[in-house]
Amino acid sequence: MIKKTFLALGLMTILFPVAAFAEDPSGATLDMGLNSLWVMLAFILVLLMQGGFILLEAGSTRMKNAGHVAGKTIFTVGLAALIYWAFGYGIAFGGDSGLSQFIGWGDFFFDPQLAGDAAAGDSFPNGVFFLFQLAFAAISLSIAWGGFAERAKLSSYIVFTLFFVGLIYPIVAHWIWGGGWLAEDGAQDFAGSTVVHLTGALAAFAATVLLKPRIGKFNKDGSANEILGHNQVFTALSVLLLWVGWFGFNAGSTVAIGDGFFTYVAFTTMLAAGAGGVAALLISWAVTGKADITAMLNGTLAGLVAITASCAFVDPWAAVVIGLVAGMLVFYSVKMFEKLKVDDPIYALSVHGMAGIWGTLANGIFATQELADKVGVGTGGLIDTGSWKQLWVQFESVVVVGAFVLVASFLVLGVMKMIMGFRVTEEQEIIGLDLSEHGAYGYPEQMKKPGQTFEG
Amino acid sequence: MIKKTFLALGLMTILFPVAAFAEDPSGATLDMGLNSLWVMLAFILVLLMQGGFILLEAGSTRMKNAGHVAGKTIFTVGLAALIYWAFGYGIAFGGDSGLSQFIGWGDFFFDPQLAGDAAAGDSFPNGVFFLFQLAFAAISLSIAWGGFAERAKLSSYIVFTLFFVGLIYPIVAHWIWGGGWLAEDGAQDFAGSTVVHLTGALAAFAATVLLKPRIGKFNKDGSANEILGHNQVFTALSVLLLWVGWFGFNAGSTVAIGDGFFTYVAFTTMLAAGAGGVAALLISWAVTGKADITAMLNGTLAGLVAITASCAFVDPWAAVVIGLVAGMLVFYSVKMFEKLKVDDPIYALSVHGMAGIWGTLANGIFATQELADKVGVGTGGLIDTGSWKQLWVQFESVVVVGAFVLVASFLVLGVMKMIMGFRVTEEQEIIGLDLSEHGAYGYPEQMKKPGQTFEG
Amino acid sequence: MIKKTFLALGLMTILFPVAAFAEDPSGATLDMGLNSLWVMLAFILVLLMQGGFILLEAGSTRMKNAGHVAGKTIFTVGLAALIYWAFGYGIAFGGDSGLSQFIGWGDFFFDPQLAGDAAAGDSFPNGVFFLFQLAFAAISLSIAWGGFAERAKLSSYIVFTLFFVGLIYPIVAHWIWGGGWLAEDGAQDFAGSTVVHLTGALAAFAATVLLKPRIGKFNKDGSANEILGHNQVFTALSVLLLWVGWFGFNAGSTVAIGDGFFTYVAFTTMLAAGAGGVAALLISWAVTGKADITAMLNGTLAGLVAITASCAFVDPWAAVVIGLVAGMLVFYSVKMFEKLKVDDPIYALSVHGMAGIWGTLANGIFATQELADKVGVGTGGLIDTGSWKQLWVQFESVVVVGAFVLVASFLVLGVMKMIMGFRVTEEQEIIGLDLSEHGAYGYPEQMKKPGQTFEG
Repeated sequence: MIKKTFLALGLMTILFPVAAFAEDPSGATLDMGLNSLWVMLAFILVLLMQGGFILLEAGSTRMKNAGHVAGKTIFTVGLAALIYWAFGYGIAFGGDSGLSQFIGWGDFFFDPQLAGDAAAGDSFPNGVFFLFQLAFAAISLSIAWGGFAERAKLSSYIVFTLFFVGLIYPIVAHWIWGGGWLAEDGAQDFAGSTVVHLTGALAAFAATVLLKPRIGKFNKDGSANEILGHNQVFTALSVLLLWVGWFGFNAGSTVAIGDGFFTYVAFTTMLAAGAGGVAALLISWAVTGKADITAMLNGTLAGLVAITASCAFVDPWAAVVIGLVAGMLVFYSVKMFEKLKVDDPIYALSVHGMAGIWGTLANGIFATQELADKVGVGTGGLIDTGSWKQLWVQFESVVVVGAFVLVASFLVLGVMKMIMGFRVTEEQEIIGLDLSEHGAYGYPEQMKKPGQTFEG
Repeated sequence: MIKKTFLALGLMTILFPVAAFAEDPSGATLDMGLNSLWVMLAFILVLLMQGGFILLEAGSTRMKNAGHVAGKTIFTVGLAALIYWAFGYGIAFGGDSGLSQFIGWGDFFFDPQLAGDAAAGDSFPNGVFFLFQLAFAAISLSIAWGGFAERAKLSSYIVFTLFFVGLIYPIVAHWIWGGGWLAEDGAQDFAGSTVVHLTGALAAFAATVLLKPRIGKFNKDGSANEILGHNQVFTALSVLLLWVGWFGFNAGSTVAIGDGFFTYVAFTTMLAAGAGGVAALLISWAVTGKADITAMLNGTLAGLVAITASCAFVDPWAAVVIGLVAGMLVFYSVKMFEKLKVDDPIYALSVHGMAGIWGTLANGIFATQELADKVGVGTGGLIDTGSWKQLWVQFESVVVVGAFVLVASFLVLGVMKMIMGFRVTEEQEIIGLDLSEHGAYGYPEQMKKPGQTFEG
Repeated sequence: MIKKTFLALGLMTILFPVAAFAEDPSGATLDMGLNSLWVMLAFILVLLMQGGFILLEAGSTRMKNAGHVAGKTIFTVGLAALIYWAFGYGIAFGGDSGLSQFIGWGDFFFDPQLAGDAAAGDSFPNGVFFLFQLAFAAISLSIAWGGFAERAKLSSYIVFTLFFVGLIYPIVAHWIWGGGWLAEDGAQDFAGSTVVHLTGALAAFAATVLLKPRIGKFNKDGSANEILGHNQVFTALSVLLLWVGWFGFNAGSTVAIGDGFFTYVAFTTMLAAGAGGVAALLISWAVTGKADITAMLNGTLAGLVAITASCAFVDPWAAVVIGLVAGMLVFYSVKMFEKLKVDDPIYALSVHGMAGIWGTLANGIFATQELADKVGVGTGGLIDTGSWKQLWVQFESVVVVGAFVLVASFLVLGVMKMIMGFRVTEEQEIIGLDLSEHGAYGYPEQMKKPGQTFEG
């Protein structure tokens, strides 16, 4: 039996809820508690996705950069937490701006105590809403790093985090999720195909264009070399971690338990993920004669990215179609970027960009009015209603967000490039960023010359 | 403060539950929500176990096959999702068969909207029940891959997934969990020692027998060589991930929160896991003079497999005994299969097969009537009741399931072997499946000749 | 539709809650269920942290010891489960001791059935409370292994687990969390900066002093060599896993959902983690000219360790300050231990020891009365109240716990060293513990001579 005489803090709190709820807690109180727990779990799952990004990025790049690639994720997630706390959250969700169609303003250096836990009308505490939103911002940031890989200076990661998490991402989030003008126009992006994935991918695009391709990626005749990632166990595991985390990402975006509708969101998410991987594997096999593992992994992720906008709005068969198309799209998209001589080491432009666009548009095609009613707001798409209206709105939001993120990212990164430099030197790139930026290899024993394995 | 003027979808849903529950939600509604959340978490944990399988299989095999081994898990889980959605779920749980003792029929291309969320009498939405059951099917499939390792063609993974997830596994699930004839006979398998683990292991057995041992596994004089896995950090981490996921697997099988009985299930699970690892390490140390790490890891898993059937039915001391026996059993079982010249690269036959049988039988020995009453159905075992009846039923279910899965697997794989071939060529096996099946090494830098490390 | 005719166990339980709650469950019952689920999730997250320790320890040490380092975590967690079940829990929380200020006594070989699920006054079942507490004990143990790394005999891990999990840790837990004398004095340690982290770190200190430094760590002139860990992808991923798990560790220590206050605890935890990593990276960059990845990773962990005592008691700005100081502290602490010629391979003394002390003291500085009232018990610190009283109590608890753990650990390890030996031979240390203690390399292919990669 647990002792009833705790006098210390910590576990003392065991007694707390007993005291607070000596009498039966009400249904509203319990509902608040239930939602809190779900959003908390969802936040944790989305944070776990950063483990996926660590493995995805490290596995997709070379051994000489592995410590840098993996370590910078921890650092930038940490920095993102501070910046989003100080500024970003207030831009995305702060309520007191006179220009609230375009930007939020307020709640800087956010304190849930001041915001009030359980403010009237909210169905969960503000603290966990903050964490969930922060986790989304950090995912978008980690997508952007795809364009920086294997050649950007460490300092550029710091500076770009400030602007991206403090300003660029929150503005997009405000437009679509914070009651801004795209929301008013009826843009439907349930969990962020546009807000999170496309935004991150376009920042990656700006970066990779400004940085130029990695040494050795393209030959003088314009043909591309494959720079293989060093560890496919890492990349396969990364996809699994991202997949798992995506149930927080998508189903968690209900931010409520309600009548269990969040489980339907998870259901469509699973189908699209499966379809994406299967489609990519089969098309890669059919076209190249080899079942390329990277293609298949990208296909699974593309399925997840694409369903993100629509997961609450579409029938199961449509989720499968969305996933299948995403899986095929990503295969050809990778080839297209190679032809365009855009170096996309982690495939962010294809997986998060192209599939993000497809997913956003797909909502305008496949959404059903019946499910929109279940969500509580929104409009059916082309197939269900016969109207092109929602598809047009979705197209508009892709164009507008795309243009804004591209301009903003080119601006920030371009100025950064002029003032402080963006890319490491050729020599540094060749020896690898582990040594040049951090002073030690991430795999010191394996980067030694052969035959030295047994010494300390 | 969170803005109250969200007009967009996605986070718009913040307002949804508030509207829906403007008045106090009822206890039944909240109970449904609470169960939904628990089954959702359990599904997520069981899906996370696939990360364990990625690492377990990759770590237990050689570097030249690592990308193939890891990547195929993502692909087959994805394919399993589609197949289980289209067929498997309807076979396992579809309700309209005239032969419902033997097979389910209905709910193909499952749509939770049609099935009705929150159907009368259910205590959670059907969508999440589907996901949880799908995750179990995918685990059983991943166990089966143990018999395919390092020599099966990629195409055979695709074809076998169709039959295993679409037919073989669902039939077993129907017999024991779907109201079929073994259920009527009183077979007790709380979370799947038989349904999931034994079924997967016997499919693995059929595969490894038909494929024949890997090149170099057995010498001409019949003695066995140890083909070491390439990464024990992966295998150790895999066991931890599986262990963590098992709390979804076992405790989640309550599919309800109720009065918190699911936590008791987790409690016995933890004890058996600990006992299995400790027993295996000590016996390995005692017998061989070296504390073999693989043996100990297998012991932990065997403890988990064995408690799976009984986790809700036995006292803590019995959980410890079940784990200890499983840990010792797996050590000798590995030796036995080597003597029988059966090549079991991932130890699936011992860990999931032998421990699965032991766990199923153990239920008939150690179950207590008091706990069976708490579960709500079931019978105490030999020790508690003095009757051999339940042990006999358990034995029957092992034999029947075993025979069915063996016959079905040999049939499917045998036909597959004749028509399309099952095993790669000798040359392909020697260069490794990463190159032969996918066109690139999973570890391209490490598989290069020494001295090339620093080039792209 | 799910069949309503389940006759088997396992999924039969689907019917159980329906039966049990045919009538509306009460608010108190649902509150119990909600708390059960939260503590269960928290337990799972804290267990997942062991995956972090596997990667942290393995990544921070050399390839020749990797299998040993990773594998022993599985084994010791398993053994810890059995020992804590048999003894430890009864010492920490057993209620019937005549000396209950100093030690608990009772509930040995703990059985939740006897303890009674849902004992009057408790707000969750005892089984899950046991699991949560066990997970904490196992974390403290894994911290202690930091001092054993790369040179302790395997047998010493077994013996020390018995004493640490059965006696040393439970006594400290009893003093602060079990109603013991430090609790009565008013020590505030919300989730274990002292109980878990400092206790583990001081056991590590005793071990590393008794073992003496690793071969090659210090030169004859007293200068230190850096023995680099072999895999920074592992260490970066480990920090992410620990970070994720920490939300169970800290926010889970509310052991209740209540009005959602647990989300505030998560909020401060996130800020401190971010601040710790940022501070450590910047100070490392400023002082050494290179942004050391290990330093940054340690900083993140130090932020988490430091906020652990205070997470429920401090304002957001204070959480940031606590994290920033912890990040800087750990950087200098690592340098200090090197100067003192104490070999700390996993940085346990700095990350868990120094940051644990800082975190415990910080509670006496930054705690606010308003938050203490929300916790339900406790006192504001120096800044809020102007009184040095709480800071003094915190200081006292550091000194008392520190002295006890140091004496007990030196005693146990010292006797062990005399009777059975503690350190492997010089030859064994040089070839590595994988071979010497377990008979096979953890990375058998990579530890071979170059040029042999392609053979089995």
